[in-house]
Amino acid sequence: MTDKSQAELLALERKYCSWGDTVHYLDPPKSFARSEGSFLYDHDGVPYLDLQMWYSAANFGYANPRLHRVLTRQLETLPQLACQYLHAEKVELAAAIGRLNASRFGMGGRVHFNVGGSQAIEDSLKIVRNATGKTLVFAFMGGYHGRTLAASAITSSYRYRRRFGHFSDRAHFVPFPYCFRCPYEKKVEDCGLYCLKQFEQSFDTEYNSFWDPKAGESEFSAFYVEPIQGTGGYVIPPPGYFAGLKKILDERHILMVDDEIQMGFYRAGKLWAIENFGVAPDIVVFGKALTNGLNPLSGVWAREDLISPAVFPPGSTHSTFSSNTLGTAVGLDVVRMTEECDYEAITRRKGAYFLARIRDLQGRYPKVIGHTDGMGMALRIEICGEDGFRPDRDLADRIFAEGMKGDLHARGRRMGLVLDVGGYYKNVFTLAPSFTITEQEIDLGIEALDQLIRRCAPDRV
Amino acid sequence: MTDKSQAELLALERKYCSWGDTVHYLDPPKSFARSEGSFLYDHDGVPYLDLQMWYSAANFGYANPRLHRVLTRQLETLPQLACQYLHAEKVELAAAIGRLNASRFGMGGRVHFNVGGSQAIEDSLKIVRNATGKTLVFAFMGGYHGRTLAASAITSSYRYRRRFGHFSDRAHFVPFPYCFRCPYEKKVEDCGLYCLKQFEQSFDTEYNSFWDPKAGESEFSAFYVEPIQGTGGYVIPPPGYFAGLKKILDERHILMVDDEIQMGFYRAGKLWAIENFGVAPDIVVFGKALTNGLNPLSGVWAREDLISPAVFPPGSTHSTFSSNTLGTAVGLDVVRMTEECDYEAITRRKGAYFLARIRDLQGRYPKVIGHTDGMGMALRIEICGEDGFRPDRDLADRIFAEGMKGDLHARGRRMGLVLDVGGYYKNVFTLAPSFTITEQEIDLGIEALDQLIRRCAPDRV
Amino acid sequence: MTDKSQAELLALERKYCSWGDTVHYLDPPKSFARSEGSFLYDHDGVPYLDLQMWYSAANFGYANPRLHRVLTRQLETLPQLACQYLHAEKVELAAAIGRLNASRFGMGGRVHFNVGGSQAIEDSLKIVRNATGKTLVFAFMGGYHGRTLAASAITSSYRYRRRFGHFSDRAHFVPFPYCFRCPYEKKVEDCGLYCLKQFEQSFDTEYNSFWDPKAGESEFSAFYVEPIQGTGGYVIPPPGYFAGLKKILDERHILMVDDEIQMGFYRAGKLWAIENFGVAPDIVVFGKALTNGLNPLSGVWAREDLISPAVFPPGSTHSTFSSNTLGTAVGLDVVRMTEECDYEAITRRKGAYFLARIRDLQGRYPKVIGHTDGMGMALRIEICGEDGFRPDRDLADRIFAEGMKGDLHARGRRMGLVLDVGGYYKNVFTLAPSFTITEQEIDLGIEALDQLIRRCAPDRV
Amino acid sequence: MTDKSQAELLALERKYCSWGDTVHYLDPPKSFARSEGSFLYDHDGVPYLDLQMWYSAANFGYANPRLHRVLTRQLETLPQLACQYLHAEKVELAAAIGRLNASRFGMGGRVHFNVGGSQAIEDSLKIVRNATGKTLVFAFMGGYHGRTLAASAITSSYRYRRRFGHFSDRAHFVPFPYCFRCPYEKKVEDCGLYCLKQFEQSFDTEYNSFWDPKAGESEFSAFYVEPIQGTGGYVIPPPGYFAGLKKILDERHILMVDDEIQMGFYRAGKLWAIENFGVAPDIVVFGKALTNGLNPLSGVWAREDLISPAVFPPGSTHSTFSSNTLGTAVGLDVVRMTEECDYEAITRRKGAYFLARIRDLQGRYPKVIGHTDGMGMALRIEICGEDGFRPDRDLADRIFAEGMKGDLHARGRRMGLVLDVGGYYKNVFTLAPSFTITEQEIDLGIEALDQLIRRCAPDRV
Repeated sequence: MTDKSQAELLALERKYCSWGDTVHYLDPPKSFARSEGSFLYDHDGVPYLDLQMWYSAANFGYANPRLHRVLTRQLETLPQLACQYLHAEKVELAAAIGRLNASRFGMGGRVHFNVGGSQAIEDSLKIVRNATGKTLVFAFMGGYHGRTLAASAITSSYRYRRRFGHFSDRAHFVPFPYCFRCPYEKKVEDCGLYCLKQFEQSFDTEYNSFWDPKAGESEFSAFYVEPIQGTGGYVIPPPGYFAGLKKILDERHILMVDDEIQMGFYRAGKLWAIENFGVAPDIVVFGKALTNGLNPLSGVWAREDLISPAVFPPGSTHSTFSSNTLGTAVGLDVVRMTEECDYEAITRRKGAYFLARIRDLQGRYPKVIGHTDGMGMALRIEICGEDGFRPDRDLADRIFAEGMKGDLHARGRRMGLVLDVGGYYKNVFTLAPSFTITEQEIDLGIEALDQLIRRCAPDRV
Repeated sequence: MTDKSQAELLALERKYCSWGDTVHYLDPPKSFARSEGSFLYDHDGVPYLDLQMWYSAANFGYANPRLHRVLTRQLETLPQLACQYLHAEKVELAAAIGRLNASRFGMGGRVHFNVGGSQAIEDSLKIVRNATGKTLVFAFMGGYHGRTLAASAITSSYRYRRRFGHFSDRAHFVPFPYCFRCPYEKKVEDCGLYCLKQFEQSFDTEYNSFWDPKAGESEFSAFYVEPIQGTGGYVIPPPGYFAGLKKILDERHILMVDDEIQMGFYRAGKLWAIENFGVAPDIVVFGKALTNGLNPLSGVWAREDLISPAVFPPGSTHSTFSSNTLGTAVGLDVVRMTEECDYEAITRRKGAYFLARIRDLQGRYPKVIGHTDGMGMALRIEICGEDGFRPDRDLADRIFAEGMKGDLHARGRRMGLVLDVGGYYKNVFTLAPSFTITEQEIDLGIEALDQLIRRCAPDRV
Repeated sequence: MTDKSQAELLALERKYCSWGDTVHYLDPPKSFARSEGSFLYDHDGVPYLDLQMWYSAANFGYANPRLHRVLTRQLETLPQLACQYLHAEKVELAAAIGRLNASRFGMGGRVHFNVGGSQAIEDSLKIVRNATGKTLVFAFMGGYHGRTLAASAITSSYRYRRRFGHFSDRAHFVPFPYCFRCPYEKKVEDCGLYCLKQFEQSFDTEYNSFWDPKAGESEFSAFYVEPIQGTGGYVIPPPGYFAGLKKILDERHILMVDDEIQMGFYRAGKLWAIENFGVAPDIVVFGKALTNGLNPLSGVWAREDLISPAVFPPGSTHSTFSSNTLGTAVGLDVVRMTEECDYEAITRRKGAYFLARIRDLQGRYPKVIGHTDGMGMALRIEICGEDGFRPDRDLADRIFAEGMKGDLHARGRRMGLVLDVGGYYKNVFTLAPSFTITEQEIDLGIEALDQLIRRCAPDRV
Repeated sequence: MTDKSQAELLALERKYCSWGDTVHYLDPPKSFARSEGSFLYDHDGVPYLDLQMWYSAANFGYANPRLHRVLTRQLETLPQLACQYLHAEKVELAAAIGRLNASRFGMGGRVHFNVGGSQAIEDSLKIVRNATGKTLVFAFMGGYHGRTLAASAITSSYRYRRRFGHFSDRAHFVPFPYCFRCPYEKKVEDCGLYCLKQFEQSFDTEYNSFWDPKAGESEFSAFYVEPIQGTGGYVIPPPGYFAGLKKILDERHILMVDDEIQMGFYRAGKLWAIENFGVAPDIVVFGKALTNGLNPLSGVWAREDLISPAVFPPGSTHSTFSSNTLGTAVGLDVVRMTEECDYEAITRRKGAYFLARIRDLQGRYPKVIGHTDGMGMALRIEICGEDGFRPDRDLADRIFAEGMKGDLHARGRRMGLVLDVGGYYKNVFTLAPSFTITEQEIDLGIEALDQLIRRCAPDRV
């Protein structure tokens, strides 16, 4: 609630706000005043259908009434408590996740909370380093694990490190199975997971730099994976890839750390995206949708032998807000919701409908959309040149910016469209619609996309 | 709100919770069910007077009604918004802090938000590295700046690094002016700030390892300071120390980063604790009390030339929840409260009253309390042996644990006392009472402390 | 000259010598008493034809009379001089190398001396870091650059790092074009230098981890190459590879550092092995044969703009023995010898003869020798299984050990054969015969090899 | 032997030589043509009395006939041999040093050879890291251990690191007991080794950054010491210092690595300088005078449990020239010389005479010489301002340069004087005369110094 005009706010922003975050990726920045369901509303009340839902942090819809009730109730009882002390919701949330993982992965484990995905990644690095005595890890090209210094070291983009000194723990980055743009120019139909073989053979001799065959020991302690790459462009790996990777890692005592910060909580149709690939990771990191965006609560689940009090004793890590009462209360209710409601079916159904509509669009605009894919309600549209392959970053940017203008007209009213641009070449719309989205709203989104494409690439439609 | 018994919760906790945080510093852990004003309430409804207020995160009292109203209102309008987009509260909060700092420090600057103090520290490290091109920093022995890997590297305790691999950016730690236990065995009355001279002379020749006189350049880019050490035991430096330090740093182009995460927002009687020492830092990091504990929002303010878009451009750092709407709304109201209400006078008056009562206690128990001190409402009681000097960690632990039992009786009712143990030797009660505490509650706290001392050290009273 | 028996010496060795070097790769270690020409002599006077000449350090024959005269003369005039002062031989040697490189590479440069190849590598790292402001480099899988800590960080074998803590500057290792065992299973005839394309495309997007396209800057400052891999097994790259690599690097402002420590001084038929590939490197590192093994003198030549006094000023690096008078005197005469005598022709002729004879051997023993190759007098014989491909390390070891026994009989007398085992799979004989070797001696070597193969693999001949 | 004029040589040097070494500390650089005994001779045959003997590398006099005979004999028998093979001199030299150390330090150990002091330091770092699993070490302010990257990281001067990127393993530098300029302004007569107490108390609490009292473990694995600082200015510590330091280290399982590269081989009156202080180090590093400057041979001796084959197995480190035959032959004879000849008595007698003469000089020129000291034949003269305290670097430089002119006249002939300037403030002449120097030559040196002082500071004599 502000008494300032948009112009006044922008003037203040120019003077007092750091521009170091991502607000100024769009210039001038876009401001919103209200959020509800699948929509953001600007200061004039114009609705914007949001197809990215805060990068999948608000899976259960903006202003979800049930979660607001939980938050309000917690405010009335135990709004604050030093994390040195226990409260019921923390314990019950850890237990709920622990039980779910035990049933999925067939092994016991524990949960450690923190705030912000990056800090959970930092905690996972501590668990890995403590358990293995090693500092170096593998991660994927195209992977994203956060922006603290240690998380930047295992996130592929050099741009995130360039101005910030020496990164002593820079990961070794391995190509992700991005089959539409296979780095080895293979076809997924008959490649026999060539990329996996490439990785495996790098352990063949000590001269390949990773492995000491005499000692049977790897220089790298863990492999950080996103089962479906988030910032990398909602890239879905081929069947068999992760099972094969886990086997290679297991044989060499290298841990698999599964970063579910963006894909967790049913974005990809399962509680954890990795479940789609039949793999039980050693460590799972989660955040974002855990509280539907109402609190930065995040966490790490690890196999018992990696995190038991004997190896990860009191004081191993700490954060003032790590298991804050508001966040854990909301998180607990989110998990309960997922247990009460069959989100696997919901996301499969809505995701399939959405993907089908996207593919229609691709059929209509083959000179604009080069690739589409989806798993659960994580969907991708790759904007390409007329050849359907060359990445067209400019066009993706124009479509995005045009959607932000809020001057589309559909179903008799003015509207905007909120998209997120990602991908290796910044030409992919990564769609993460609300699980509460209706088929009508999906149709509306498709209609908006259609209009945007026609506006921005009139010569290619 | 749980239907589990305490025993059931503890059983779940044993199985599913990581013990790697600080909950198990007390065994069995302590659980609370309600918080309000200066009190925590256990599951039997027994009140515990809280003299540490979540390590100074809840300065304005638990369940502060005004702030709850703000949070509820924000929930109803814009509860969620991707931080890539603007909302009014973010801008207004940045502007408010920017203006306050301009008036205090006489220079322009900008604010960058994040969540959790450690992530704000990480952002400050990025700003420092980017501006100076250097990775190494100075920090204080006894200093605490967080527990991400990079924050652990500049936090003095080796215990926080020991099991976590190599820290390539370990700070050089400089003795803090902890005059009660002067590392040089000087007396503050006539030392002439000997410790400062020690630091300064380390730049005399290249052989002292920090300075290249030929190039006029330091190996260290910044000095991270807590104006009053938090975890270190609420140690208050002598007058002149920080002014002298800043001069030494300025002459050598070394930045001063002021960590106000624990002491900011009037804990030490001023908006920023550093104001007590007449120094304008180059960067200020803050968190905790910014939202009174309702949201992990944190931030960095930096001098314009260190953070302007020209040097710290879009995309320099990022975090999903960095300027989340709930946190910024509450933060904005906290700052407004501090502008509307004279917290400088309040904290000075209540702090002085509390310190006087503590000194009475010290007078009564000279064989238990070796040192007391206070600035604003940051107070310290150092538990010592009979000589009034040797740290008595065991006794401090016993008093703390005894207060947690909740079986004191005062003013006709059963109660407990929540203390925080800190200090280099873990023998200091660091008191951070609520700004809403009354004189009667202070008296109650003193009475409780008195009882605890008599219970735990009957032979020394 | 010792009065101890071999048994006494071995007893002393067991007690007082570190076994951390490579002496105990053979157990018990082998001892020699005399060296001359192409031969080592054991304590019983048995000659061992040496086909590896101290890993190419003694290219001009053991006990070369001309070089001994130079050394003796220097002993009589200026045997010692602090390297802070000049002497003529240092200057003339630097000038000679500088002139040779100017004529070869078409650019000016300077020479910096040190002792030991690793220290010259360290100096080159200083030059690279100083010029680029960056710490990370590329290097090849299979590459070897020395065993100081910084050299180990850019040498591929993890075994050399495993027990020695964290290597903050670990290189990113790129597959070498080892076409006999192409890591991509291509055929050199039609691969179109696929491996080079793989490397190039890793700069396509920021997500591939090396390159920030916005800034046009690489995270890696230099690529350390051995034109022909030494320890890696005398692997000779295909035509066009290095020219293509240099182009990729140049376009991205990445330096090429050419490690000629083992291949320099005509081992591969040219002064520098890189000349065979038509590439002008930015930095050349050399050592070993510079003094024919009489002194550990080593050096770095760098392009003027990387090493001029303006950028690499006095005091940038230093070593007590860096340009010692005995070493520079011998080095100067070695360079003069190479100018007076056409070693290009000599090594081409003798190398071709030797390679032809090796290929005869391969023809005779296709179930033992899988691959042979040679450039100049750097030759390789890869010992494989019956399929001619699977590396047979055990057989290579047996042949090596058998040669060391000194009980072969050829040309009417007892003899031994000194081989060196290298290669990714430790199954390659890397032959570096003396430039003074005769055709008769080559024939003798072939005969000895023939006998050894028959002895060690009787079932496969 | 060159046919070039000095001018021609200087012209070549300007064009082809790197200036990155220390030659251009004097401009134009100084060149010499002959060395013998205690003298260097320039190209005109003018003798320069050398009081620094190649920084103590040529302790036994330039062109020592006995050692030349040994070197020549080795040239005639086994001038070259790959270090993968044994030769008698290596074993006998290791055994000789091993026996000497066993008798001095009362424990067994082994010797590992390399070339150049820095590479021996690198090997010692490997031994330390391997044995302790830790990477960080302590070292002294004013300490010098070499110029490879890892050695630079533990050498105090930031100047040596400034342009060379991030040093992940930078030592923590501790003040050396430089009593003439006590960093704590104490007097050695009554300080009670205050500096040692300062160091010890830094282990008192975990907050002092070095020690985890819970685990009883230090973050630092070893302390690198020069018993008498070399480059630091031949600073001699007070009695009791090293014994006290070793006790502190032993109690905390921190190794002491004794760098004897400059002071070893009787420079300070004992085989190892540390013997003067009654301390048995865990590791000894040596080089320089081991071969009297005829070969860069260096080495490490370590306690058996740190270097036995079980913990430091074959292949742990390696260097082509590590135990080269020429170096070990000369080294063995140097050690034999020290066993045959009482260098302890010689250096004590000559050192005492020289120090007495220096003190005469100090008596005569109290406004020029602020401090003198000596142990064995390691002597120091600190050039100060008129107050006898303020370092006068300019005057030291002028005296040094004047001595280099070679136009002094003494004993009826023209001469020069070779000095070395060191010290924290570059105002100390560090004298390391030849052990073969005569009293007459010492007198000559004093006379030359006297003349130089009169020439360069006429107003202060």
